[in-house]
Order: sequence, then structure tokens, then C-alpha cells
Amino acid sequence: MEALTRQSLSVCPFVKKHSTAAFKRMSQSSALVSQAAHCPVVGPAMKRGLATSAGATVAAPAASTASANTSFDFDALFQGDLAKKRSDKSYRFFNNINRLAAEFPKAHRKNEADKVTVWCSNDYLGMGRNPQVLAAMKTALERYGSGAGGTRNIAGHNRHAIALEAELANLHKQDAALVFTSCMVANDAVLSLLGQKIKDLVIFSDSLNHASMIQGIRNSRAKKHVFKHNDLEDLERLLKQYPKSTPKLIAFESVYSMCGSVAPIEKICDLAQQYGALTFLDEVHAVGMYGPHGAGVAEHLDFEEHLRSGIASPSRKTIMERVDMITGTLGKAYGAVGGYVAGKRDLIDWLRSYAPGFIFTTTLPPAVMAGAAAAIRYQRATLKDRVLQQQNTRYVKDTLRSLGIPVIPNPSHIVPILVGNAADAKKASDLLLEKHSIYVQAINYPTVPIGEERLRITPTPGHGKELSDELITAVVSVFEELNLKKVDAWEKEGGHCGVGLKGVAPMEHLWTDAQLALKDSDLNKNVVEPVIEGLEVSSGVRI
Amino acid sequence: MEALTRQSLSVCPFVKKHSTAAFKRMSQSSALVSQAAHCPVVGPAMKRGLATSAGATVAAPAASTASANTSFDFDALFQGDLAKKRSDKSYRFFNNINRLAAEFPKAHRKNEADKVTVWCSNDYLGMGRNPQVLAAMKTALERYGSGAGGTRNIAGHNRHAIALEAELANLHKQDAALVFTSCMVANDAVLSLLGQKIKDLVIFSDSLNHASMIQGIRNSRAKKHVFKHNDLEDLERLLKQYPKSTPKLIAFESVYSMCGSVAPIEKICDLAQQYGALTFLDEVHAVGMYGPHGAGVAEHLDFEEHLRSGIASPSRKTIMERVDMITGTLGKAYGAVGGYVAGKRDLIDWLRSYAPGFIFTTTLPPAVMAGAAAAIRYQRATLKDRVLQQQNTRYVKDTLRSLGIPVIPNPSHIVPILVGNAADAKKASDLLLEKHSIYVQAINYPTVPIGEERLRITPTPGHGKELSDELITAVVSVFEELNLKKVDAWEKEGGHCGVGLKGVAPMEHLWTDAQLALKDSDLNKNVVEPVIEGLEVSSGVRI
Repeated sequence: MEALTRQSLSVCPFVKKHSTAAFKRMSQSSALVSQAAHCPVVGPAMKRGLATSAGATVAAPAASTASANTSFDFDALFQGDLAKKRSDKSYRFFNNINRLAAEFPKAHRKNEADKVTVWCSNDYLGMGRNPQVLAAMKTALERYGSGAGGTRNIAGHNRHAIALEAELANLHKQDAALVFTSCMVANDAVLSLLGQKIKDLVIFSDSLNHASMIQGIRNSRAKKHVFKHNDLEDLERLLKQYPKSTPKLIAFESVYSMCGSVAPIEKICDLAQQYGALTFLDEVHAVGMYGPHGAGVAEHLDFEEHLRSGIASPSRKTIMERVDMITGTLGKAYGAVGGYVAGKRDLIDWLRSYAPGFIFTTTLPPAVMAGAAAAIRYQRATLKDRVLQQQNTRYVKDTLRSLGIPVIPNPSHIVPILVGNAADAKKASDLLLEKHSIYVQAINYPTVPIGEERLRITPTPGHGKELSDELITAVVSVFEELNLKKVDAWEKEGGHCGVGLKGVAPMEHLWTDAQLALKDSDLNKNVVEPVIEGLEVSSGVRI
Repeated sequence: MEALTRQSLSVCPFVKKHSTAAFKRMSQSSALVSQAAHCPVVGPAMKRGLATSAGATVAAPAASTASANTSFDFDALFQGDLAKKRSDKSYRFFNNINRLAAEFPKAHRKNEADKVTVWCSNDYLGMGRNPQVLAAMKTALERYGSGAGGTRNIAGHNRHAIALEAELANLHKQDAALVFTSCMVANDAVLSLLGQKIKDLVIFSDSLNHASMIQGIRNSRAKKHVFKHNDLEDLERLLKQYPKSTPKLIAFESVYSMCGSVAPIEKICDLAQQYGALTFLDEVHAVGMYGPHGAGVAEHLDFEEHLRSGIASPSRKTIMERVDMITGTLGKAYGAVGGYVAGKRDLIDWLRSYAPGFIFTTTLPPAVMAGAAAAIRYQRATLKDRVLQQQNTRYVKDTLRSLGIPVIPNPSHIVPILVGNAADAKKASDLLLEKHSIYVQAINYPTVPIGEERLRITPTPGHGKELSDELITAVVSVFEELNLKKVDAWEKEGGHCGVGLKGVAPMEHLWTDAQLALKDSDLNKNVVEPVIEGLEVSSGVRI
């Protein structure tokens, strides 16, 4: 066998042609083994049942020198990878943070007396402590117990799932919705199924898309093009390479969570229509937060129409209705856990019928679904939390900026503060926690690229002026103590991540001043009409 | 461009050599595009930026005849796939089943007065209505709110996660554990990461493995061999093809949920040791149900040792401790939702540090984690639910069998009744529900292979003699009304799925008569010692 391998390596034009790096890449994706099947030497050998050892030897030309009779050292691999993380400072230390419903936004650490203010939670509106949500959960818990007891198909389909999906479909003005255990799973399951089942599908993916979408696209094995973040020209350049008849999908987010940038949704829909693409919009960081009813940025873009029409469809087709699939989460602004996709009836039924990530998993607990539905209904019927959250965000951003702190500019509710390396970001986070009792987690690789490490601050309606001033004083103090780069320093380097760029006009807020002046009484109250439980799209019954 | 394509197709030895089916396969996995890069004609064309249209044309030789200027008809595809499901009877109609905590195992349907007995839930022990579990959940809900508010790294790591992971590590006598949003995610995330990060890993997978494991292995892109269900000879035949030094992983389950068969865990560990493989054991349907403390079948196999030692390790290395990774669920016998993996410290830390399915998702709600931890602790300290569940299972199985109903034989708590086609299985399920107020979901493709459709019954401690007799009478009546095949009919056909095989000795129960006679007082009570919160493996801190 070894002689055969040596021989094939010395005469093989394929081996001669490729670099070691190329082999490594191929062997990681098992492309090498499939290539090997076509080789006149290795191919027949593989067929004769020698497949595996030949394949393995070829696939690992620079493999360890351990004897073939010694087991692979798995522990050494795990330890080596962990050591790598420790040495490049990307090893993660989790903070024990117990957010207290009655003292929002405070939390206790391991020791209950050790309290901190949480400034980085994704419970953006404090719905996790909303009395109506908690009451709905308790009622469901008492009546229906702790869990759903099965998958949606087997004993785990119930009125809570039906009501929640109807609520979500109504919210997004789509035909139907499907709930998953998380939006990580929803994105992965939906994108991977589309790519696997639609032959020749080409996926166009924004370069800043979340890991869940990247994973879904990767698992779909569809052809993929990554377009520059929010860059319509680059997207069109890629789209136009294909005939209109080639099935395409554009996958993007509305609010990008780590920098707070916002996608040009309407223009992406225009391109999708022009080039024959489905649109997949992740509104995870926007649902609950934008639009008169909290349906997200797509709703926000037709603010007036939706404000007036309530649950009814406006007379013209809105941007939200043009999007083919909207995914969202129940775990951030709605304060619970879980994810979903909303879209046309057949698409949702198709996903319901084919997606393993939906089919083969236990349904969320009735209490969780009841709480999420209550949170959605609450936020559909009020503007005040969203408005207050935006006002608090503006105060924090503006004040930090006026003090030279490098806030990465964006039009949304995220306040990212550039640090620029992992060690300093962690030090800053630790110092805020230990010295100032303020919890802001450092965001390091792989969540953001190396060199763009940051602190990510998320104000809520509960973070008023007093707490904000505490935060601002602490951040300024930490920047001075650690000698971190302020705006002027980045400016001298020509700017980074949008910080310190000269001659750039200030970014407009998504929530305009006029929108922030609206009162709940301006909201069309037909949004609180009861959910029709008969809308059982998810049950396979068309009523 | 078209001329180039026609030319390449007519002269290409690669195209001539492969069947259309092979092209379809390759194009689905994008292998074709990577192959095309090596072609002397298409390769340079791709490099010149014509890549995409050339690739697409080659990849779809038999594509639709629609004009290149017409968008792909996505709706037709979704509708076609749904029509296919309707015509082969695999289209799923969900039943609206609301399990009532106070009337376990009863549930109401859409109309609250319409009550049924649930006989197919995976809340195997009725922990979903356990008062201690519900109390723990309510306390956590009131104090810490509805959701975790973030990922484990960002604001979502808390005492509930720490305590639950410590509980799970103790339960399985492993160093550490990691909680995921579901075991679907745990299996997918763990297997796909192992295959992606361990170069040349070869995975050996039982042919009846759950969809989550199949998905994880598929997403890992590692080389895979499927061995015949529970067949040690077949597994060894595949293992021995590789040198011992090739990294290997054997992925299998303890209790296979749809047929109730049980893996030869100890012998698989022996083979793993002999051939240098990691063992990945899914105990999803066994945790809570087997072993003196409910740790699963691996614990059950050393029943006496674990019964005596409690939380301490027995003096000799047990089978449970030999398994490298155990995955399990919090959503079946523990009555909540969520999944986990338990194993050695470095392995768990490595998964914590690298698995996207763990990193990029919101933590389970504190109340869910508190409820799950309470359920585990409760079941570690008592035998009676497990014993009663097994006794009820025996009664149902034995009585049905004595009446000629084709129960697929197995040594576990699952009672699968063979029907053999999708339409009849659905009819039987509908008839049980509508006429007898008994809910047993039909199990059709893809959950089981076509031709093996069944009713899957899961008794609980709450399904005593009275309810069991009602079920048995109803099943017999439905079999007669629909003229379904009984054991004698299968026998005449030579047997199917283990039913109607002649000369086969009856299968032994996993729970022996002696074990069923044990009392809680026989259990070593040191299992209820308090959890040490300092065991923060998950926080990255080694205490």
C-alpha cells in the first residue's frame, strides 16, 4: 500500500500541480477524496476496497509521524486548539450575570449582594420583566406544565404554537409563520433546505451576515457569492452574471448587530425583482424595535402607512410585504427564547414539511410561547418603549461622541465602541465590571473581525439619564486608565470602522424626530384585536 | 458563451464518462463546480470571470426550458413538493393537543371540553407536571424574568446555566457538560464541529441514527460509513479498513426511539478502544428512564455499582465513564426543553469555544434551566417513577401481544405497533382520536422507512391499568375496523420489523424483575447533595 502511495505521489500530475495549501483546503472539505476517485491509479484501488487507507494517506501528506498502530491523540488536538485561543486572547471567559426582574436593568453576580448594571443585554425593551408577559407565562405553566412533551408532529402541537404563529404572521403581514427553537436554527434550517432542494440555487450573502446564516448557506452546499456589506453595486454585479432564470436568493439582515448598520431593504427588493431572486431578511435585532408595531425595519420604512392601517394591509404593497422570508427572534426585544420565519403560505408549509431542524425537535414550552405571544401583542399596541429606547440611545451616543469616545456610527439602537484589539477590549470590560459595577461584554473574534474588537452597549427604556451618566463617566475613565484610542487617534490613522473619517456627514437616525414625538394614541388600535385561533396554517389544515 | 459550452460538452471526456444522475448529485453538492475549475476549457473561462454562467449552464444540463429572461418559478416548486407529499400520504396534519398538568395524562383539543388521553408524548415520566419542577420554574420566573437576554458569552451566562451543567456532569459522571437549545442542535453542532476540525476524521454511524446525528455528520463533511443497526460485526468490518492512527468516531444511540431497540454499548466501547475511535452516545430517549439515577442505559448496564456508589465513582471504571461523549435532552423524560453534551473537560471546553451552534444563540430561559435541573435532581433521588413506567409498559406490551396486535419487539419503554403503510397508520390514529378519545400519532416517512409505518405508544407512570385497558380495547377495535394486519398475518409473510418471526426467543427487558422490585430506600442518598456552584467549567475558569 505504501509503495502504491509513493508511486502515485511521484508520477501524479494532479499532486504536482497543486500547492500544499490547496491540498489542505481540499482535504478539509473532502473534495480530495472525490477527486481521487477519478485518478487512474488511486480510483481503482479505492474501488477494490483499499479506498480508505489510500484516501487517508493521500489526504494527509504532512500528517503526524505517529505509528499507524497508535490511536489518534484527540486530547492533544483539543488542548492545542484551546492553547491557541488562549494565546491569541480569543479564549472566552463567561461572566455569571443574573438579571433581576424586579431591579431591571440590575443583575447580581455569583454573590447575590454583588450587583451590577447590565449594559449589553439583548433584552432591548426589558420585556423579560414585563408583568403581562410574566402573568401569561405563569398561567400557561400552571395549566399546561413545564414542557410541550413532543415534536410539533407528535404530541407537541398546541394552541400556544398556533396562536404564536398567527401572531407572527399578522405582525409581518405575511400569510403564515413557523416557530423554531431559536433563530440560529431557523436561519440554518431555512437556508440549508432552500439550497439543498432548489437545484442550481445561487445564494448572494451580505459579508456581515450572522454566523447562523453563514452556517445555513454552508450546509446548503449551494453556490454562494458574498457581496460587500450593504453594497448594492457589488450585489448587482454578482446577480447580473446569471440568466434571470437561474434560481437565486439574497440573504441579508436589517440591523447588523455588532455595528448597528442598516440594510437598504427596498433597493435589495428591487434588485431581487429585476434579477429573479427570493429575498431572505433576518430582522432578529429589529423586531420589537422598529416600525409602529415593532415588526422591524421593513415595517419602519413605510411607517405612516402601517401606523394608519394597523393590522390591515395598506392600500399599496409595502416593503415588508415584498420580502419573501422574514426571520426573527423571540429571544431579544421580545425577551423570551425561540425563532421563526414568516412568508407565503406554500413556502411556510413547504418548510414545515421538509426542514429537519423544524421536524425533529421538541416544541418550545407552552409557557415560553405564551410569553412570547404576549410580548408581541404588547409591543404591537404601544410605541412608548421603542421611543424611550431610542431616546436613551441617542443620549448615550451623543454624549460619548462629544467626549471623544469612538462610537462606530450607525442609524440604529446599537452603541458599538471601537477598541481595536482583543486584550484591551477584555481589560476594558473587566475594569468596567470590577471597578464600576457596569457589565459590558467585550466583543472579540470570531464575533467581529480581528482588529475591530469593541464594547457593544445596548441601552433599554430602563437606562435613563442617571444610569447613562454613570456609564459615560465609567467609559471615559476606563479609556483614560487603559490609554485606549479616542476619535482623534483614529482620525490620525485615517479612520477605522467608520470612526475618525473626515468629511463624512453625520448619520441619520432610523427613528426620526417626528416619529419619536408620536404617542400611543396615534397608533391604530385595531392591532389588539384577538388572534383567530382558526388560522391553523401550521396544522396543515387550510381554513 | 453558448458556443463555448456546446463545444466543451461535445468534446469533454468528463461529461462523456458520467451519467446524468452522477451530474445531478455533483451539482447538488457543488462538486461539479470545483471539478470544472480543473478543466482546460471551462477552468480558464471561469478564471476570466465567466465562471458563473458557464458553471451554471454545465451544472444544469437538463434544466427547465423556460426562457433565460423569466424568473425561476419558486412557487411552482413549493407547490409541486407539497403535492408530492399529499399524494404519497406523507403530508403531515398536526393535531392540536393541549396537555393538562392537573389532569395528566389528559389533554384538551381545540375545544376545551373535548378531552383525550395522550399516549404518545415523550414526557415519559410526567415531569412536565411535577410540583417541584413547577415551583422551581415559578421562582426563577419571578426573580429572573422570562428570558436569559443574551448568548452565553454576552449577558446570558448565569447561575442557572452553571448549576444545570454541573448537575448534568455529575449525573453522567463526566468532567463537564454543555447545554444547547435542543439535542437536535447539540448533536448537529458537536458532530459537525468534530468532523470539520479533526482532519481526516472518519465517522461510523448506526443506520438507525436520529436525523440530528445524520445532519451533524452530513454538515461535518467528514468521511462516513453507515453500519447495520446494532451490528458489531459490520461495524468492526468497517473500522478495520483503517490504520489505528486514523482518527475515528462511532456515533450511536442507546435507545432507538422509533423501534425501542437498545445498542450494545459496552461492546461498541471495546471496538472503539481497539481501533482508536471516540464514542458519541445519544441517550436522548434514555436519560431519566434507565439506571438507578436516571443517567441512561450506560448507567443501567452497571446498575449495582451505581446504585451503591451514588454520586461517587464506583471503584472500577464503568461503561458510562468509558463513553467519550454523551448527549441527552431536557425535553423528554425531564419534561422541559433543551439538550446537552457531557464529556471530558478539554473536549467540553473545546466545544464551548468553537461550536457556532453553541456560541451564536440565546441561552435557554433561567426558568427552563431551573426546571430541568429540578427534574434531574428529583429523578436522581427516586426510582419509583421509572419502575412504574416500566411496569405499565410491560402490561401494555404483554396484553397487546396476547391479543395478536403486532408490537415490534424491543427491551425498552417504547411500544411500537406495526401498521405497514402511511394511509392506514393515519386512519388508525384518526379513528383512535375521533372515536376513542385516545391520541396516538401515526409515525410515517421520513421518521420511519416507507413500509414500516406504525403507531408509537409511550406509557408513563400515569398510565395505570384502567387507562391501559381503555387503550388496548380501542387498539383492538381499530385493528378490526380497519382490517389491519395482526401478528399471524405478518407471520404468514415471513415476518416484518421483528414481528411474526418464528423461533425467536422473547426479548429480555432492560429493567429486570429484581430491579423493578427495588425501593427508593435502596438508593444511595448522597445523590441529593447540593450542587457546587464553583464547578464553573462552562465559564472558562478552572476552579
